[in-house]
Amino acid sequence: MAKFLTNREENYSQWYNDLVIKADLAENSAVRGCMVIKPYGYAIWERIQAELDRLFKATGHVNAYFPLFIPKSFLSREAAHVEGFAKECAVVTHYRLKTDETGKGIVVDPDARLDEELIIRPTSETIIWNSYRNWIHSYRDLPILINQWANVVRWEMRTRLFLRTAEFLWQEGHTAHATRDEALEETEKMINVYANFAENFMALPVIKGRKSENERFAGALDTFAIEALMQDGKALQAGTSHFLGQNFAKAFDVQFTDKAGKLEYVWATSWGVSTRLMGAIIMGHADNNGLVLPPKLAPIQVVIIPIFKNSDQLALISEKAVKIKADLEKKGITVKYDDRDNNTPGWKFTDYELKGVPVRLAIGPRDLQNNTVEAARRDTLSKETVQIENINEYIPAILDDIQANIFKKALDFRQQNTFHIDRWDDFVSTLDNQGGFIMAHWDGTAETEEKIKEETKATIRCIPFNTAEEDGKCIYSGKPSKRRVLFARAY
Amino acid sequence: MAKFLTNREENYSQWYNDLVIKADLAENSAVRGCMVIKPYGYAIWERIQAELDRLFKATGHVNAYFPLFIPKSFLSREAAHVEGFAKECAVVTHYRLKTDETGKGIVVDPDARLDEELIIRPTSETIIWNSYRNWIHSYRDLPILINQWANVVRWEMRTRLFLRTAEFLWQEGHTAHATRDEALEETEKMINVYANFAENFMALPVIKGRKSENERFAGALDTFAIEALMQDGKALQAGTSHFLGQNFAKAFDVQFTDKAGKLEYVWATSWGVSTRLMGAIIMGHADNNGLVLPPKLAPIQVVIIPIFKNSDQLALISEKAVKIKADLEKKGITVKYDDRDNNTPGWKFTDYELKGVPVRLAIGPRDLQNNTVEAARRDTLSKETVQIENINEYIPAILDDIQANIFKKALDFRQQNTFHIDRWDDFVSTLDNQGGFIMAHWDGTAETEEKIKEETKATIRCIPFNTAEEDGKCIYSGKPSKRRVLFARAY
Repeated sequence: MAKFLTNREENYSQWYNDLVIKADLAENSAVRGCMVIKPYGYAIWERIQAELDRLFKATGHVNAYFPLFIPKSFLSREAAHVEGFAKECAVVTHYRLKTDETGKGIVVDPDARLDEELIIRPTSETIIWNSYRNWIHSYRDLPILINQWANVVRWEMRTRLFLRTAEFLWQEGHTAHATRDEALEETEKMINVYANFAENFMALPVIKGRKSENERFAGALDTFAIEALMQDGKALQAGTSHFLGQNFAKAFDVQFTDKAGKLEYVWATSWGVSTRLMGAIIMGHADNNGLVLPPKLAPIQVVIIPIFKNSDQLALISEKAVKIKADLEKKGITVKYDDRDNNTPGWKFTDYELKGVPVRLAIGPRDLQNNTVEAARRDTLSKETVQIENINEYIPAILDDIQANIFKKALDFRQQNTFHIDRWDDFVSTLDNQGGFIMAHWDGTAETEEKIKEETKATIRCIPFNTAEEDGKCIYSGKPSKRRVLFARAY
Repeated sequence: MAKFLTNREENYSQWYNDLVIKADLAENSAVRGCMVIKPYGYAIWERIQAELDRLFKATGHVNAYFPLFIPKSFLSREAAHVEGFAKECAVVTHYRLKTDETGKGIVVDPDARLDEELIIRPTSETIIWNSYRNWIHSYRDLPILINQWANVVRWEMRTRLFLRTAEFLWQEGHTAHATRDEALEETEKMINVYANFAENFMALPVIKGRKSENERFAGALDTFAIEALMQDGKALQAGTSHFLGQNFAKAFDVQFTDKAGKLEYVWATSWGVSTRLMGAIIMGHADNNGLVLPPKLAPIQVVIIPIFKNSDQLALISEKAVKIKADLEKKGITVKYDDRDNNTPGWKFTDYELKGVPVRLAIGPRDLQNNTVEAARRDTLSKETVQIENINEYIPAILDDIQANIFKKALDFRQQNTFHIDRWDDFVSTLDNQGGFIMAHWDGTAETEEKIKEETKATIRCIPFNTAEEDGKCIYSGKPSKRRVLFARAY
C-alpha cells in the first residue's frame, strides 16, 4: 500500500492527498467541497475532541448547542463581521420540495419561500449573542463560559481535505464577561490551552502571538493565534482566540447591571479549532511510509501482529497476545490484536505504518520459544526484542519516548527553518528556496503587509508574544521598526 | 423556583414546557422551530451520548462523518424514501450574499445560484449509500458498521422543545451486510441495544415490536421500535431500527462479489435515537417539584450544600464536604459542592430538586458535632441522617436504589395503564379518559388502522415481539385477528 504513496520530496501536495486517502482518513464527497471523514480519520478526531473537551472543562467551561441556521439580518448587525462572513455562505431560501410535473422528479416548491433567508452558520457569534441577551441581566449572570462542538459551512472555492473544506467540524467557545480585563484574560487563557494541546498532545511546537489588524477575525478587537511550521516550510494556523470587546454586545444589545448598579455592555471572547488540526498532525509528522501519530492522540497505540505457519502456532501466539493486550489495556493503553488470516504479516506491517500506529509488536515462533516479542516504533522505524515479562513497563515508556521524540524532531526542524532576515532579497529567496518561518522587521502598516503578500505570498502569521523589542528597519519599506514579526507562506 | 412550575395534574403540557425552561434544559431560538440546548440540558445529552457510544462500540461499530448537504437528485433515487423525506426540508439554493443597493443591508446574490439545490440532511441514507458504492467491492469489504453523531433538519410545522424540533441532534447507524440474515440480525441487535439503554440507563420500561406498514421508515422493509409510556398516558417512540433490504443498494448501485464470485446487491440497516430521548426522560420521571434524573445519566449525581451562620462554620463544613467529594469522585461518582453564599440553603434545595439531582447532602452545625450529614433522595423526597464514615458505602447503594426504584415506579405505572380491550366503546372511552397502552385485536389492514387513527387519534405503536398468538376479532372491523397489537395516542 505505502509504495503507492507519492514521494514527499518529489511532490509534497500529492503526497498529502495520497496519504489522506490511503490511510483511510477522509475523501471527497458528491457535494462540492464537503468531505466524508472515514472511521479511522474520525477516530483521531474523537481523540482530539476528548482531550480538548477535558481541557475546556478543566478551565471551567461547559458545552451547549445553538441552531445551525442564522437569520440573514443577524449577520448585518456587526459591521466588520458581515464583511468577513456574509459573503461565501450557504443560503436556505425554501422549506419544501414537491413532485415535478412529470411526477418523477422533485423540484423546489415556489410557494414555500422563507420570509427571511437563513444562512448556515459560518461561525456562531450572532445567533449566540442574540440568546445571551436574554440570559444576562446582572453581574451575577456572568461570566458565561460556553463551548459548542458543531459543524459550520464556509463556501470556499478551492478546497483541500481537512485543510479547507466547505463544511468542517470544529468547536467554538463563546464567553461573556463583566470586565474588559476578565475577557482579555480569557482570550489569553484559551490561546494557552490551545498551545498546550498542540505541543503536549499533537507534539507540534507552536508560536503564540497576536494577529495583525489585517488578519484579525471579523468583528474582533484582537486575535491571538498559534502557528505551526509544516514539513514543507509553510505555516499552518492551528487555533485562534479572539477578544471581541463589546462589539457583539452592542450589536445585540446585551447589557448588564454591574455591582454599582450601572448598566454596562458585556465583554466577549470567542475561540476555536477545527478538523484542520488533522491536517497539522499529518503534515507535521508523517513521512514517506505514511502517518506518524503522536501516541497521545493515536486511536490504536499498539498493534500486535502474529507471525504463524499454522493454526496450532496461531493458537499459542494468540494466548500470549491476548494476555499482553489485556495487561496493557488495564494501564489505559489502546491495543489492537490483528489476527486476521486474509493478509500476510508483511502487508499488515506496511498498513499499520501507513496508519501511523506508534508501536507494533510482532510475535513469531521463535518469540514463543524465547518468551519475547519484536517491538518496532513508528517514529524511528527501529526494532528491538523485548522479554514479555518486561512489556508492561516497556510500552508506557516507549510511548512517552515517541511522544517526546516527535515533538523534539518537529522543534529541531522549526529551529533549523526559522530565519532572522534583514534584507529584502534574502527574504524573497528564502521563501522561494526553502520556506520556513522568517522573523523580520515590519513598519506596522497594512499597506506594507499587503505589498509583501502580493509580491511574495507571505503573510504576517503573528506578532509573537515573547520577542524582545529591538530597533530595526522594515524589511520592505525600510521605515523604523521596534520588533520582528513572524512571516511565512501559509495554508 | 419550583413553585412557578405549573401543576402536572392541571395542565400536563404547560408543566412540561415550564419544566424544560425552568430547569434550564433548553429554549426556543430566534429561528422558528430550532432550539437552543442550554448547558444543563446539554450535559444530560452528553451523558446519553457517552453511554450510547460505549454500547455501539461494544457491539463493533465505529463513528464517521458524512456531509450535511444532500444533492436534491439523491432523494429521488429511492421511491418510498423521497415520499417520506423530500417534502418538508431546508433547501439551499444559493452560495453567496452581497451588499444591497443601499450599501447597508445584504441580499442573496442572484448570480450565485447552485446548479443543483442542496437539501439539509433529514436523514443520511442517500449520501451515505452513495459513498458506500465506492467502498464496497467484495464480501471482504463487509460488513460496514458505521454510526454518525450529527444534526439533522426536518421542517416540522408544529414544534415542541426536545419532542419535535426543526433541527435536532441524533445518531444514525448505517450498516452494510453480505446477507439478508446478517442485516436482519443487526436490525434486531440494535433495537435490543436501544431497549437496554432505555431500561437500564433511562430507567424507562419499553415495549419492543415491529411497526405496521403505515408507520414504517420511508424506504425500509421492516421497522422495529421501542415504545415508552409517558405519565400522561401517551406513548413516546424512543428509538427505531430499520431493515432496509436491498433498497438503497439498488438505488445507489452498490454491489459486491460474494464468496462464490457472484455479483449481489448489499443488504442494509439504519437505526437512530435523538434529543427526543430528553423528552422521554423528563416525561417519564419528573414530578411537580421538577426533574427526576436517573442516577446513571445525571450530570451531577450528588450535591453537597453547607448550612452555616458564619464563615468559621463554613470553613469547618467545607473541610468535611471537600473530603466527601474527593472520596466519592474516586469511586466515579459526580459530586458538586455548592458553597455559593449568594443563595440560601432553602433556595438551593428547591433548585437542585428542580434540576433532578438524585442525592442531596446537607451539612449543618449539628452535623459537625455529630459527624453526620443529612441525605435526601430526589425520587422519594425522603431524608435520613448518615454517619460520615459510612458515606462511601451509602452513596453508591442509594444511587443504585434510586435507579431501580424509578424504573420500578415507571413499570408499575405502565402495568396499571396497559389495558386489554375488546370492545370499541371501551377502546374510545379508555383513550379519552385515561390514555395508556391498549392491547387490542386488529385485522391487519392499513384501512382499519387509518380509520382508528382518524376517529381516536390513536395509532398502532407496534406489533410487540413477545405476544402470544390469540384468536380474536378486530376492535374496529370485527374481522378475525391472530394477535393483539399495541395502540396509543403518541407524541
